[in-house]
Amino acid sequence: MRNSTRSSVDPFIVMDVMQAATAAEAAGRHIIHMEVGQPGTGAPKEAAEALTKAMQDGPLGYTVALGLPALRARIAQMYGEWYNVDLDPARVVITPGSSGGFLLAFTALFDSGDRVGIGAPGYPSYRQILRALGMQPVDLPASPENRYQPVAADFADENLKGLLVASPANPSGTMLDRPALSALTEACAANDMSFISDEIYHGIEYDKKAVTALEITDDCYVINSFSKYFSMTGWRVGWMVVPEDQVRVVERIAQNMFICAPHASQIAALAAMDCDDELQANLAVYRRNRDLVVEGLKEAGFTDIAPPDGAFYVYADVSRFTDDSRAFAAEILEKASVAVTPGLDFDPLRGHKTLRFSYARSTADMEEGIARLKAFMAAR
Amino acid sequence: MRNSTRSSVDPFIVMDVMQAATAAEAAGRHIIHMEVGQPGTGAPKEAAEALTKAMQDGPLGYTVALGLPALRARIAQMYGEWYNVDLDPARVVITPGSSGGFLLAFTALFDSGDRVGIGAPGYPSYRQILRALGMQPVDLPASPENRYQPVAADFADENLKGLLVASPANPSGTMLDRPALSALTEACAANDMSFISDEIYHGIEYDKKAVTALEITDDCYVINSFSKYFSMTGWRVGWMVVPEDQVRVVERIAQNMFICAPHASQIAALAAMDCDDELQANLAVYRRNRDLVVEGLKEAGFTDIAPPDGAFYVYADVSRFTDDSRAFAAEILEKASVAVTPGLDFDPLRGHKTLRFSYARSTADMEEGIARLKAFMAAR
Repeated sequence: MRNSTRSSVDPFIVMDVMQAATAAEAAGRHIIHMEVGQPGTGAPKEAAEALTKAMQDGPLGYTVALGLPALRARIAQMYGEWYNVDLDPARVVITPGSSGGFLLAFTALFDSGDRVGIGAPGYPSYRQILRALGMQPVDLPASPENRYQPVAADFADENLKGLLVASPANPSGTMLDRPALSALTEACAANDMSFISDEIYHGIEYDKKAVTALEITDDCYVINSFSKYFSMTGWRVGWMVVPEDQVRVVERIAQNMFICAPHASQIAALAAMDCDDELQANLAVYRRNRDLVVEGLKEAGFTDIAPPDGAFYVYADVSRFTDDSRAFAAEILEKASVAVTPGLDFDPLRGHKTLRFSYARSTADMEEGIARLKAFMAAR
Repeated sequence: MRNSTRSSVDPFIVMDVMQAATAAEAAGRHIIHMEVGQPGTGAPKEAAEALTKAMQDGPLGYTVALGLPALRARIAQMYGEWYNVDLDPARVVITPGSSGGFLLAFTALFDSGDRVGIGAPGYPSYRQILRALGMQPVDLPASPENRYQPVAADFADENLKGLLVASPANPSGTMLDRPALSALTEACAANDMSFISDEIYHGIEYDKKAVTALEITDDCYVINSFSKYFSMTGWRVGWMVVPEDQVRVVERIAQNMFICAPHASQIAALAAMDCDDELQANLAVYRRNRDLVVEGLKEAGFTDIAPPDGAFYVYADVSRFTDDSRAFAAEILEKASVAVTPGLDFDPLRGHKTLRFSYARSTADMEEGIARLKAFMAAR
């Protein structure tokens, strides 16, 4: 059967690492996982309890396309609590994960062939989803000096219809502070470009609170999820905040593309929002991990890193050691039994000289991983 | 903020009916719901129990993009049990509902501007999803003589890249028998068109078993879901069977567009597949409802209907009574307190003279609904 042009999506390079890691484990070896992009923790305990009760109470049919009103209201309340932003719940759209948010946002805003700017390095699926929708992703190579975040000068001549940024970012963990974010939203407004802010790692931040684009402007799409801070990856539930005049168009697309986000997940998510103790305990682990991983990587010789403000990743320039990050990751897996991600998924152009280390797993795993990396680098 | 051309999705006409019904109920009136497209029953009891247990056992992180191997294997086994088709589990892709299946299939097969044939009347979201992806849906007006199903002659001159059919169909409930389905797959093969078979209502059939396209050819995409027979609408989990050479491309699109279908829903779905007793009891209700609704509608004066072979809908030509199905539905809601769906959502061109009656709810509701419709029509 013949395939479309838009279906030729790049494979994830990290899949090779994961398959090799799985094979090594099947062969009896013990692998430390610093390649994974998800928490090792599950949904908060009370989220599971709320769902168990709801399943006893009655059928979980379709919800309305915009999501359970109570969940939309609770999310709006959170914007007051976290950012002191007064948000109308009517602007909150519940989505099937942030993945669903990207599909909705891109469809609402862009047409076939439209050029949309994304920072490189960045989450690989931005590029692939845009292509799969027949749009044109434009990589904006962000410099280490700008902490791997795009600046307005990077897209001045790119003739873009929109810009998508992430803060804290994957893979770098760096954040856009208020002036940096303002400069980007203003440049977009001045150039008639739509601005999309991926805030999926909000809540996982270490030294200062992440800034939401909604503190700066209402003229943006904000995408978020219950996958990271709320530790609910497999549940596929997230949300999007859109301008008031965008709610209706997004609702109609969502009705047709998704019908609704999973009802069970929406119930669990609502309960998760009142589980601060458990979630802050998860965060304390990330904080410990970040400190020991950043310090340990430096001691091991990985000194060229952007200090991670949030998320659970460290992005390292390894050009001193290799110009083939894929082979280097394979070597690390083989010799140190640590799985890490080559930068190519995040930055096709320059990722051959970078690695991403994730510290989402347990502190004990991170200690062991760092010890192995130190020994590996010392012996190299 | 400026919107894309592709985002201008038609509203669902039935939403007006549902809003009016909700308003009537808020005003204290009792409404019989014959407009809904989902079972009134929930997931099977053991599905909920399996999920409760799984939540206690450990975190529900991402699954692999193609879905839980055990669920894929169980679905493949079902093709043996239901159709005597020997299916390789590797060809089964778990999707976030049939909605996710459509997104994957259309993306894998069609490019911007490609013309894709869909039967009219048909599920409205086919048209809207195709448009939202920048493709061109082509309505094929199916005739009552062909039981509202398209035939090859309907698209001979349409220059299509693909054809999507549904059996049992929404809104008509009619099925394509083996010769009819074969004629369509052969016409597609002869014209280098991709063939997509929506089999979401399989399992809800009354006089004979629905035929899957996989009994006829492997050169097709088959889309199905746990929403109807398995009574799990809000769970957003379904599946797709694709040719062997399509698995890899679909996997890559799914990894990026969805990451995975909801893990919790996949666990519940797997358990639901062994709940025949409960599901057959649901089916017995649909069968009773179908008999009494078909008979009752005829007695009420709605005589022009295609005998429904499956699903839980009756599609009636009401041109003897009106040329404005929307106003007629509003009148029925107002005077008979029965909510029904005007045909316009399913067939923009000819739906002004049709109505869809759903019999998915309880038998008591159906009896009351028919009584009200008879009284309404008698008084008209």
